[in-house]
This record gives sequence, structure tokens and C-alpha cells, in this order.
Amino acid sequence: MELFSRSVELVAIPRGTPRVEDFRIVQTPVPPLGPDQILVRNAFMSLDPSMRIRMRGEDSDYLAPYVVGGVLDGFSVGTVVQSTSARIPVDSLVRHHAGWRDIAVVDAEGDSWRQPQVIEPTGIRRAQEYLGPLGPSGLTAWAGLLKVAELRPDDVVFVSAAAGAVGSMVVQIASILGNRVIGSAGSADKVDYVRSIGADAAFSYRDGDILGQLRRCAPNGIDVYFDNVGGEQMAAALELINARGRIALCGMVAGYGDEVMGQLPGNLFSAIAKGITLRGFLARMYAECLPEFTDQVSGWLDDGSLTYRYSIAEGLDSAPQAFIDMLTGRTAGKALVALP
Amino acid sequence: MELFSRSVELVAIPRGTPRVEDFRIVQTPVPPLGPDQILVRNAFMSLDPSMRIRMRGEDSDYLAPYVVGGVLDGFSVGTVVQSTSARIPVDSLVRHHAGWRDIAVVDAEGDSWRQPQVIEPTGIRRAQEYLGPLGPSGLTAWAGLLKVAELRPDDVVFVSAAAGAVGSMVVQIASILGNRVIGSAGSADKVDYVRSIGADAAFSYRDGDILGQLRRCAPNGIDVYFDNVGGEQMAAALELINARGRIALCGMVAGYGDEVMGQLPGNLFSAIAKGITLRGFLARMYAECLPEFTDQVSGWLDDGSLTYRYSIAEGLDSAPQAFIDMLTGRTAGKALVALP
Repeated sequence: MELFSRSVELVAIPRGTPRVEDFRIVQTPVPPLGPDQILVRNAFMSLDPSMRIRMRGEDSDYLAPYVVGGVLDGFSVGTVVQSTSARIPVDSLVRHHAGWRDIAVVDAEGDSWRQPQVIEPTGIRRAQEYLGPLGPSGLTAWAGLLKVAELRPDDVVFVSAAAGAVGSMVVQIASILGNRVIGSAGSADKVDYVRSIGADAAFSYRDGDILGQLRRCAPNGIDVYFDNVGGEQMAAALELINARGRIALCGMVAGYGDEVMGQLPGNLFSAIAKGITLRGFLARMYAECLPEFTDQVSGWLDDGSLTYRYSIAEGLDSAPQAFIDMLTGRTAGKALVALP
Repeated sequence: MELFSRSVELVAIPRGTPRVEDFRIVQTPVPPLGPDQILVRNAFMSLDPSMRIRMRGEDSDYLAPYVVGGVLDGFSVGTVVQSTSARIPVDSLVRHHAGWRDIAVVDAEGDSWRQPQVIEPTGIRRAQEYLGPLGPSGLTAWAGLLKVAELRPDDVVFVSAAAGAVGSMVVQIASILGNRVIGSAGSADKVDYVRSIGADAAFSYRDGDILGQLRRCAPNGIDVYFDNVGGEQMAAALELINARGRIALCGMVAGYGDEVMGQLPGNLFSAIAKGITLRGFLARMYAECLPEFTDQVSGWLDDGSLTYRYSIAEGLDSAPQAFIDMLTGRTAGKALVALP
């Protein structure tokens, strides 16, 4: 019996916020496995803000751009149903990079960051955690705070998009480590959630006067800013950051649909006067930290000190709308699509 | 006999490039020394681009702003002619912060960065070196390259304003240490000078196509950018910097007269994708490195591997025009005023 894979293709380069018409579902026969490949039935696929950047149709130093008329990809977890790999037997649960489809043929070896990893969920560990707190989103939060911003014991931390997949972990890690942490988010509900997971103060950027709100939350300034959005919140952080402060540049989602990305409001000069460090990073730059990261975060998950929220859409057909919902702030926590 | 001091006052907040009418010379009687003070007859005063920032009339985290109707200040060297300080005897040569005047009354103790330092020129060491390669400009170059940008053996270095007081030392230190170094400057003469002091390649930003010129000088990209100017050269550096590159934010002289300083062209996003570090600094943040810096740079001066150029204006009356000349690129090397 011939096997078919359903997958999501990019139909057009979106302008601004993508529309569902920019995507379409295609069905293609699954070819027989070549040597050292696995056939995976995906259980969950990850939706990440960075995917919007890959839809800009531009070559860049970032992840490779998606191609119009080509199938999208991204991190996913699933069960191996066929294998020609000695390393990965049938029935393994794997995290791999062939998301946006229900059935995937994946090379067992390759680029170390994207190659399939066998994961071993225990009773209390659910498969989706390997796309969330124990996945790239989790590593982004952990490495950004501890390695990129070099968090110190008395630092006051500010994180934007604090209810999101990355931000909610930044809030919790800083809080677990005893730092004062301030989070911003885009609705009253999200602000409540950010407080509930350990933020000492939180505000909604949609209420306006971002600088004033941040100043009230951080009367003595901030020492670390974990930037997920760029724009006005970056400007406010640069204004209020203390001497020798550190800014982890993680994302600038506010500008992902703009003609020119990454425009910074005009006060970088204060970075000189205050001796500020701004450091950009991607999770894969800290792949060598995976064992240390996995150990520490597993411990926090196991003892209940770290919790995690998902927005799970059902079925591949819902993936384009779920992606748009994530970009426009209508999801909370980690956005996933379940592929039954 | 009553002693008078001639000094330079700020008359108005300059708009854009300052005019000589924004300054005036005033003459005031010198008061008798209080306890722990010295009376210094200045020999040279330093002119620094950062002084333009202090003329913006804004409170900032930078150096304290100059006050309209008040005397300017800045680093200066001179001879002590009276003293009530046990630490600093008469006839000492001192570097201190009461420049822009011929005779200065200075507190012997105070803020560690600005307090008078007794300096000891030897036969081959001239007093002005303590405002140049062994002064704050020299420390800026040395610390910016070695401590802020954390120069590594194979780094390709790009420095803007490479014929200037700071830039010319950056070029030479990188060259002495065996790194490939590219400099930009504002005229063909300056470009020749930059090459003559060790730059492997150099170009004039006034010839246009900064990105193209830099790309031709650095076909394999750059690893370190020592930024003295901001603006278009920063944009080109961000475009061509290699993964994990480092940018020392030293000055943004291109924008010192602008309404909003420090505006960055729109590609900070690439800092994320490439894992770039941008770090601002002021020389005084590295005051603890002074002994190491002085040792190393004295050695290079003594053995002739490091040379230094001065643009010396004569007399206090010429100071305002000399300052304007420096800001508009009509000086080369370290701008000083000799006070006979």
C-alpha cells in the first residue's frame, strides 16, 4: 500500500502578518527509505516566531529561507515507524527538523543541531516537553540568561514577551535563581500569568507608556534585558539599564514583518556611556551546553519548580492559522500543532 | 601681585557643528589655594570629540554636561607652581582635568579618574604623550581593542576614524600584535597615513560606497569593529562582520550634533543571526588596567614600534577653532592646544 505524507507549503512571501492563503496543504507519496534514513510519524510540530523570518524570501546569515513552492520545516517530535539507521531503531521517539508534515523521511545523520535525537520520555515527561522547556525554546531561555547575559546574583532582569515559549522560562529561571524579574506581555491575562510563574512585577505593553511602566516596575533600573521583541521595549530597556548591564538579543518579533528588520530606536549611544553589552545569539550556538541545560531544567521540571504552558492546535490543516495566531499574540506559552 | 587665569566659557548650546561664537575667553582672578590644592600652569590641553557631547546641554549617563556660562574642562598637563598638597610638590608635572584654561586651581584628591596624577617624563618621553598614547586616548584604544573587543590572534580588525587620536593607536596595536587591520579615514592624505602606520588596507569614507570599499578591503569579512563614528560605517561593519564577531562601541561622532544621537541603521537583527557582541565603553571603566597599559605602550613607544601624531594649536585663543577643526576632520592625530 502506498504511503502518503501531508505537508504545508509556502505559496507566497507574506507581506506583514501572514494570511492562511500564503500556505497550502499538499499530499505526496512517501518514497522508499534510502540508507541511513528513518520514517517518522510526527506527534507534535513546533511553531516558532523565527519561522516568520525564514518567510521573508531573503538570503541571510539566519536560518535558511523557506522557498515559495517548497515544504516548510522546523522542529518536531514523532515515532520512528521504519528505519535503515543502526543508531535509531523503530519505535524510538525522536526530535528532528522535518516538521510541518504528518509523515517525514529524515536523514539519520547530518548537521549536529538538526539531526534526529532519540529522546526518552519517562512517566512524568511528556513528548511535547522536548519541543518546549527541554527543546530549542528552553535552551534559548536558559543559555540567553545564563551564558549570553551572564546573569549575576543581584541582577534585576527584564524580559519581554514574558508569557511566551521562551520568555516564560526566562521569568521562571531568574525567579528560581533568586533574581528580581520583571516581565512584559500583551494582555491582562498574560500579565497575570507572568506574575503567577514568579515575576516580581509585570505590565502589558498594550497599555502604552512602556518607559513609564518599566520605570515603576524597576525603580532602581535593570541589569539584564532579555529582548524578544526589539522596538519600543528595547528603547525603554536601554534607557533604564544600569551601568555595565547586559542585553541578550534573542528576537525582534515586533519587526519581523517590516521592510527593514531590526531597526533600533535612537539611543544606542547610551550603551557607550553606560558600558552596556548587547549580544545576539541563537540556541544552536550553545549546543555544547545541552547536557548541562537538560540536567538542570529536568530537575526543575521534576521537582515542580518550573511549569510550562502550551497552546496546542489540532491537526495539520490548522497549522497555518495557529502560526498566525502565535505571531499576533493570540497564543500563550509554547505553540504546537498536534498531529494525530 | 594678583594672578589671573584665562579660560574658555560656553556661551550657547551649539546646533550641529559648533561655531567660534559659541565660546568666549574670560579672565578671572585666581583665588588663594585652600587646603590640599595645587596651582598648575598648563602646558597642553586635550581636545576630545566627547566634549561635543558635553555641549548638548542634556543630562546623561555620559560625562557631566557643560553649563552655558561656565568654564569648560578636560584633560590637561602642566607644572605645579604652588601646592598645599603633601602628595604633589611644586615643580611636579601633572595630568589633571582642569583644561580649557592657562592657570588652574585643582583639588589634589578626588574622583580617582580625574584627580591629578604626577607624571614623570624621561628624556625621550614628552609631556604631551600623557595626553596622547599614554593618556585617555591611548587607554581607549588599548582597552577597546584588547579588553572590550577581546582581540584574538587571527581576528581581522576594522577601525573607523583610523587617522585619529584613538584610531591611529588601534591600527598600530593591532598591527604590532600581528592582526590584519583595515582603517577608514576622511581624506586621501589620511588614508596614506593610516597605511604608513601599519594598516593592511585603508579607504576614505568620503569616496562613497562604504560597504563596497570595506568588502574589497576585507574579502573574508571582519571579526572586530572598533567603532568611532556610528552611522553608515557601523551599518557596513554589521553587514560584513563574521559570526561571533565583536564590536567595541567607542564613539559615534557622526551623530554628535544630531537631534537624536546614536541612531543605528536598520540591521541590528544580523547581530542575532551571527551571534555578534556590541559593547560600549569609556576609558575610565578600565582605569584598573592603567599599569598594564602604561607598561605595554611605553615599551612600544621606547622601541619605536608605535608612533604618534599631534595637531597642536598655539594659545588658548585658538582653542575654540581648533576644537571645531577636530570635529570636522581638519586635524590629524591627537588634537592639543599648547599654552605657552
